[in-house]
Amino acid sequence: MMIESIHFIYNQYIQEKRMTTVRSFHPPQRTLLGPGPSDVPPRVLEAMSRPTLGHLDPAFVTMMDELKGLLRYAFQTDYSLAMPISGPGSAGMEAAFVNLLEPGEKVIICQNGVFGGRMKENAERCGAVPVMVQDEWGKPADPHKVEAALKANPDAKVVAVVQAETSTGALSDVRTIAGIAHKYECLIIVDSVTALGGSPLKVSEWQLDAVYSGSQKCLSCTPGLSPITFSPRAVEKVKSRKHKVQSWFLDFNLVLGYWDGGAQRSYHHTAPINALYGLHEALVMLQEEVLENAWQRHRKNHLALRAGVEAMGLAFVVEEAYRLPQLNAITIPPGVQDAVVRQRLLNDYSIEIGAGLGAMAGKIWRIGLMGHASNRKNVLLLLGALDAILTDMKAPIYSGVAIEAAMQIYNS
Amino acid sequence: MMIESIHFIYNQYIQEKRMTTVRSFHPPQRTLLGPGPSDVPPRVLEAMSRPTLGHLDPAFVTMMDELKGLLRYAFQTDYSLAMPISGPGSAGMEAAFVNLLEPGEKVIICQNGVFGGRMKENAERCGAVPVMVQDEWGKPADPHKVEAALKANPDAKVVAVVQAETSTGALSDVRTIAGIAHKYECLIIVDSVTALGGSPLKVSEWQLDAVYSGSQKCLSCTPGLSPITFSPRAVEKVKSRKHKVQSWFLDFNLVLGYWDGGAQRSYHHTAPINALYGLHEALVMLQEEVLENAWQRHRKNHLALRAGVEAMGLAFVVEEAYRLPQLNAITIPPGVQDAVVRQRLLNDYSIEIGAGLGAMAGKIWRIGLMGHASNRKNVLLLLGALDAILTDMKAPIYSGVAIEAAMQIYNS
Repeated sequence: MMIESIHFIYNQYIQEKRMTTVRSFHPPQRTLLGPGPSDVPPRVLEAMSRPTLGHLDPAFVTMMDELKGLLRYAFQTDYSLAMPISGPGSAGMEAAFVNLLEPGEKVIICQNGVFGGRMKENAERCGAVPVMVQDEWGKPADPHKVEAALKANPDAKVVAVVQAETSTGALSDVRTIAGIAHKYECLIIVDSVTALGGSPLKVSEWQLDAVYSGSQKCLSCTPGLSPITFSPRAVEKVKSRKHKVQSWFLDFNLVLGYWDGGAQRSYHHTAPINALYGLHEALVMLQEEVLENAWQRHRKNHLALRAGVEAMGLAFVVEEAYRLPQLNAITIPPGVQDAVVRQRLLNDYSIEIGAGLGAMAGKIWRIGLMGHASNRKNVLLLLGALDAILTDMKAPIYSGVAIEAAMQIYNS
Repeated sequence: MMIESIHFIYNQYIQEKRMTTVRSFHPPQRTLLGPGPSDVPPRVLEAMSRPTLGHLDPAFVTMMDELKGLLRYAFQTDYSLAMPISGPGSAGMEAAFVNLLEPGEKVIICQNGVFGGRMKENAERCGAVPVMVQDEWGKPADPHKVEAALKANPDAKVVAVVQAETSTGALSDVRTIAGIAHKYECLIIVDSVTALGGSPLKVSEWQLDAVYSGSQKCLSCTPGLSPITFSPRAVEKVKSRKHKVQSWFLDFNLVLGYWDGGAQRSYHHTAPINALYGLHEALVMLQEEVLENAWQRHRKNHLALRAGVEAMGLAFVVEEAYRLPQLNAITIPPGVQDAVVRQRLLNDYSIEIGAGLGAMAGKIWRIGLMGHASNRKNVLLLLGALDAILTDMKAPIYSGVAIEAAMQIYNS
């Protein structure tokens, strides 16, 4: 025992020399009104802190089956393949591309913001050949251009489009684009990271083939999971590939052995148990609210924010007809320093809003009203804070009128 | 208001037709003594339920920097690159392979269990050329065979080895194998998924180039994250690649812009915020205990388990000299049905132990004593339960002696 004590003291000494002691981390309480993550409700946070189970535990397997059913509801699909990828939305995007594209295959990619560019990167890294269909940032993907690209490239196998472009707040008509893709015998990949739970999305009715999303946007779960669904036709393509999927981790031929394995479920990788508890709870809450009511809530709060923002004299980047209610891109008024306003919102009000990405950096703010965070309290809080900060900075806005304008929407 | 109410009731009706209502999931409380996940301490679970922050929030960035420091401590390294991959250990393995291997490059892979085979899959899917060095399952990787393979393949660029083979419980001497790899100017990739925090691992002193692990084994965090560290030489190879890394999600040239970006930190993917809180807390606990004490604790509890298991007359798969204290593979006694015993442990005692994988399915049990779960209470609980079940099944064991044998170790 004496030797053990000396050993312990020695280790303590070495340890103290080695690094400054790090203490438990206690984050501040923010109001997350950026492009995601959005505020996570206490129910979801509490669910994540329940006891960890093994990934083959029968009790866990029951939860997995429920989770698949809940995802089908959120996606509005009856496809068998509906599951969460054990990684963030970027892993979901990669899963769609590596599973559905073989080397040398042509893919039509719509780009009207940052995420279409990321799709191009993914396609190239699969050895596929991307054909880009460009639209102005802030505009939706143009179905006519997609059809022209398909006519010019009759050997294309896949069309890919972002439904809700998180970098600009533009909504594209993926239903129409899917119809065109199918006319030319292509599969359609849809990025619904920011759409799912916030904007209408009807995967089966619209006949979408591969749709991935993120847990941390309109589902109000913590970041780290990517719900995904594949049509039977997409699954068939994965099963009849000539080349192995280049990612072992994301190979659906293997992943489905676990998620779709029934009683013979086999180990592929260890599922992120507690994160999945959180997603399950977030989807139970969505089911309680009813999906269509969630869409309507996102729309109502957007209208109130819009009224306030426009009353201040600020302008939206995206036209009303294809503007996402959950992601509001606003042009920064002339002479106003982007970073200063965001910093004051964070420091004085503990509110996070998003900066512009890529070509839009410094030019726009991205105000998210996503999931749990899309509520009247947050709309009024943000309008009040923005009004106060911009007025104090002597920015060219109409002061003191935003909240009343928003309240008129709520009272109508 | 009237129309809204009707709309709400209609949606409720549609919703009820669509699916059976799913309720919140409340998992049973298990004692996790399998190959991982291991039991997660309440402190870690509670940390995960703290308020979500944005991934570029200054408060979060501070936590990320602390986390990197804590990972360097756990890995015993001063390498700059030490971070968690936003996916499970399988994603960590894939990250090591896709970043360090270019198409056509030769890699020597040691296989003495399931995970060496997974390395082969990863290497092939990168377009690399694996040269397999086979050892019997349950034995460690043989450094002499590695040297012979390097002599026969002077164009090899990388050697890959599993330090702690989770499928068998065998510990390989990665320090010696790293020395040989460097003699032949190869980089060394080490899988330390089950080793980190449970068995000695000194990344800088042993000059390992790429080491990945999992959060859910001896660190006692929830599954879903893969700590990884790269030597400067490995980082140099990633930066000077001829071909782009085939995974956009795992490309360190991009990921480091976020994790190593300092004040100019740029968005790559949304980090799994709350999971990272959990890993931070688990590593704070490891630092409080002191790493060397954690290794010693794992060893002590293994010795007690061994005394009990051997007193029952059961045999270990792996010889004592290279047996992992945190993963105990035990041969199932003749006439005893694997699944029945594991089911009774789960149903009657709420204890999970692991089945055999691959060639060892049905032949062995894998008893994990990992992280928080490596404690005296669990050793005695498991020995008592196993003794009772096997005695009841009239299995050929010595009954009623296991606990006393284990206690002799604790009292010595």
